Order: sequence, then C-alpha cells, then structure tokens
Amino acid sequence: MNHFQDLYRYRELIDAHLEEELPELDSKSRTLLEAMRYTLGAKGKRIRPFLLLLTCESAGGDVKEAVPYACAVEFIHAYSLIHDDLPAMDDDDLRRGEPTNHKVFGEGMAILAGDGLLSAAFEVFHKDYLIYLDRPEQLKRRIRAGAEIAKGCGCRGMVAGQASDLEAEGLVVSPDLLDYIHLGKTAALIRAAICAGAYLGGADEPDIRHFSDYGENLGLAFQIADDILDVTAETEVLGKTAGKDEKAHKATYPSVHGLEAARERLLELTTRAADAVERTSVNDGYKDQFTDLARALAHREH
Amino acid sequence: MNHFQDLYRYRELIDAHLEEELPELDSKSRTLLEAMRYTLGAKGKRIRPFLLLLTCESAGGDVKEAVPYACAVEFIHAYSLIHDDLPAMDDDDLRRGEPTNHKVFGEGMAILAGDGLLSAAFEVFHKDYLIYLDRPEQLKRRIRAGAEIAKGCGCRGMVAGQASDLEAEGLVVSPDLLDYIHLGKTAALIRAAICAGAYLGGADEPDIRHFSDYGENLGLAFQIADDILDVTAETEVLGKTAGKDEKAHKATYPSVHGLEAARERLLELTTRAADAVERTSVNDGYKDQFTDLARALAHREH
Repeated sequence: MNHFQDLYRYRELIDAHLEEELPELDSKSRTLLEAMRYTLGAKGKRIRPFLLLLTCESAGGDVKEAVPYACAVEFIHAYSLIHDDLPAMDDDDLRRGEPTNHKVFGEGMAILAGDGLLSAAFEVFHKDYLIYLDRPEQLKRRIRAGAEIAKGCGCRGMVAGQASDLEAEGLVVSPDLLDYIHLGKTAALIRAAICAGAYLGGADEPDIRHFSDYGENLGLAFQIADDILDVTAETEVLGKTAGKDEKAHKATYPSVHGLEAARERLLELTTRAADAVERTSVNDGYKDQFTDLARALAHREH
Repeated sequence: MNHFQDLYRYRELIDAHLEEELPELDSKSRTLLEAMRYTLGAKGKRIRPFLLLLTCESAGGDVKEAVPYACAVEFIHAYSLIHDDLPAMDDDDLRRGEPTNHKVFGEGMAILAGDGLLSAAFEVFHKDYLIYLDRPEQLKRRIRAGAEIAKGCGCRGMVAGQASDLEAEGLVVSPDLLDYIHLGKTAALIRAAICAGAYLGGADEPDIRHFSDYGENLGLAFQIADDILDVTAETEVLGKTAGKDEKAHKATYPSVHGLEAARERLLELTTRAADAVERTSVNDGYKDQFTDLARALAHREH
C-alpha cells in the first residue's frame, strides 16, 4: 500500500486550491459562501479529484493545469451531498461526523449552496476555457474534459441515479435497476472525473476507453462498499448515520443480493478495474497506484 | 407594438426545439424527465430565449445556430423556478396557473428536476462546443456565450440573488441590498442571455457593453414590474398566488420604496434600457424591437 500514500501530495494540492477556485463572492453573499464552504470543508476524502489528477499525470499531463478541474469535480460532489442529505431526499442529519448542511444553514440555503456549487464548477471550466482560447489543442482537451463531467453529473448520470434511487425507496428493485441506480448515482461522476483527467493529460482514445472501464468498475465497487458499510459499520466510525439504508428501505446491493454476494461482487469489480487499467499504456508504477487505490476504496472502513 | 408581434416566430422556434435539446434519458428515468418537462411546458413566456435570439440576429448572427443556447437558458430559468417554489424557499403552490413542480412530483423529485435542468444546460453547451471544436472563431464566440451564462446563473449571479432574498425575508432591507437582490435573482440571467446572444451573433466589444447595460436595466425593470404586479394583480390573471411577497415579508421595490416610487423607477429603467440599445450599432428596426420589448415587459399584466 505504499503507492497509496503517494496520493496525499494531491490531497494537499487540492485542499490548497479548493477555496481559491471558488468564484469571488460579494460580501453580501457571505452566508451563501459559508454554506458552500461548509460542505467543501477539510473532511472530504477527495477521491474524485485524486483520481482526476492521478489519471492526468499518468497520461503524461501536468497536474497543476488540471487542478481547476479537480476542484470543480469536488464542488459537484459536495453539491450532490448537500442535496442528497435534504429532508426530501435521504433526510440525513450527519455527514462526515458533522451536522449536514441544511441542519446548519436551513433547507433553503442548503438547496442554494448546492446550486451555487454546481454552477461554480461550470464557471471554473469556462474560466479555464477562456484562458486557453488561443491554444486550440489544449482547448480541445479541456472541452472534452468538461463535456465528460457535464454528462456524468447530469440527468443521464448522477441526477438520473439519484432520481431512480428516490423512486425505488420501499419498492422491490430488480438487479438491473439496482445497477442503473449505482451506475448513475456513484459511478458516473467517478468515471467522468477519471476520463476528464485522461483527456487533460492527453491520453489517446484506446486509453480513454480503458480508463472509462476502470472508472465504471471502481465507481460500482465504491457504491457497493458503501452499502456494505451501512450494514456492518458503526455510526461513529462511518461519520454518518449507519443502518440508514435499511431503515429507509433503500435499494442496496446487500438488500437485493445479500451481504455475501455483495462482497463477491465487490471483489469481482475490483479485479475488473485492475484488468482495465492493465490494458492502458501508462507505466507500471501508475498501474500499481490505480490498482492499490481500487483495493483501498473497496476495503475502506468509512 | 407591431415589432413585438415579430417575436412570436422565435417562440415557435424555441418551443419546437426545447424538448429536442434535452439530453436523451433512459426509460428508467421517465419520472425525472416528466418532472423536467413539466416546468419547461408550454406556458412559459420564453423571454430569456427570445432576448438571446433577438440579440444574436440583430448582431448579424444566424438564429438557428443560437437555438441550443436559447433552450439552455430556458432550462436554467425553469430550474430556478422549480427550486424557488419549494417549501424551503418561496413555498408556492401555483405557477403559471398550474400546481408547482413539487406539488405534482414531490419535493425530492422537484429538487432533482431542477438539478437535472441546470446540468442539462451545460451538457447542451458542451455538445455544441464539441461540434465546433475545429472552427476556432466560432468556438470562441460559443465559449464566451457559455461563460456569460455560467456566471449569470451562478453564485455571483442568480443564486446569489436568491440567497440574499431568502436571508432578507422579514428584515428591513436597505435600498442597496434590494438592488443587489434584484440584480442577482432576475437581472443576472436576463443580462447573460442577452450578452450570450450578442457574442453568438458576433457583436464587437462596445456593442456587448451596451447590450449588457440594456440587459441589466431590462432585468431590474422586469423584477420591479413583477413586484408591482404582486401587489396590484389578481391571482387569476397572474397565474401565481398574488400578494405572496407581502405575506412572506419579502424585500420588494414597493415595500422598500412605496408603489409610486416603484412605478417611477420602472419608467426610468425602461428609458435607460432604450438609451443603451440606442448606443449599439444594430439597425433601427432592431432598436425598435428591443425598446418595444422593454416597454411591453414593464407594462405587462402577468
């Protein structure tokens, strides 16, 4: 797991830039900014930006130039957490061991903080496009990266997954629908972050496809690990309310297939992710990092 | 008012493309798509897309090529209405004479429909950028248009205005803060739509500035007209609950300055909008259309 430690240099890079990349708000919007910052705060695992930067670097790109995209992906992730925790959605009071956004700022401001973070991501992309307006080759990579993320977070990706998840509450869910939910609500943005990193790093089309496979398998594994943790972990370790899924009659892998099948599938997906990354043309050191990361995420404790 | 009639050709063009521009959703996301479509439905005035297309055409652009942007702006407007009507925000049951989105689809799905529409707008932009990837000059115009809209709808624009509006409820609001709220929640997206149209049409920088002034004055006038209507109109004519602002102790121009001062300011803003458009280099026929449109919006009955 030595390679996994390497990723902490990205964590500092991301944390150092996260607030800087937020649009500069008027002092009259102080509460909005505080609400946006609150969920962006230091306790996030920064997995999506990690993955974006690692993929970019492994493909030969300059990590520093990808930082705005990494931050924007974290904005989108934070927005999704805020909206997901709302009473009308998952109704969660606790996130990363702290009160959820709407518990601190009220529901209205929390909705707007989410809206603000999502919009901020696209402001960041466009600010970057404007900088590269006269460098066509670099601009193309950036637009392709932005397009991946726009698709991944939207109504064919993350929002679709959330909507199906919400509709499925309390219903008997087919394995097919469960995969659709997981692909949307979790894998879509993870996959998009990875593909965006690949584009930014200048990866060729075959590598983009392999990274896309890696991201999809990793994303599904990540969600199944999350579902398993909800059943097996304590609230204190988890930092959010454990056992919520069952209580809310949520469609989860353990509830549809059983805990053992969930663990088997997790193993299978981690292997598939490793296989996909093996097919890319990146060097072995990076392949190890991607594989270690997939294993670490599948076997995490919170 | 003959020129104003001309705009109806745009209305058909917009209505014909609005659904087409929505990303193609999986059948599993039927409810989400229905919720998104519901607020996009036929009763909107389509003012922002109108303005975008008119500005594009007046600057010498091809209206057909600007249609995706016009539709995307309407997606953003629809998202803002859905979130604004939520119980945690303005808590409105009625919009355009119909039940609001969350009344039909529930709060969770309404939040997601809004999120989906906002994301869809940025998917539309990126889809268009990808088409023009090898035509640098056209790509630049498009990115500048997208950047204007991203800024206008975000946490320095519309979301900022909504947040301040929410915070100001029940408080004594200074004229300065009231202007900030109005500039954000209404003028920012209207101004952005107009500037986007100007960029798409190939307007030069001085014209962009004049159009920006026109948009800002028009947007402020539009909001003040809205505030006045809330006091003076009947629910039936308005299509949404009249008298809501006063009941919710909202900061409005009439509540801060009185009804007569509101009417005077409306006149002043309409004149300023007309003056701004007069300074552009577009031909007189278009100038008349912009001026007529400003007057019509200021004196509308719903």
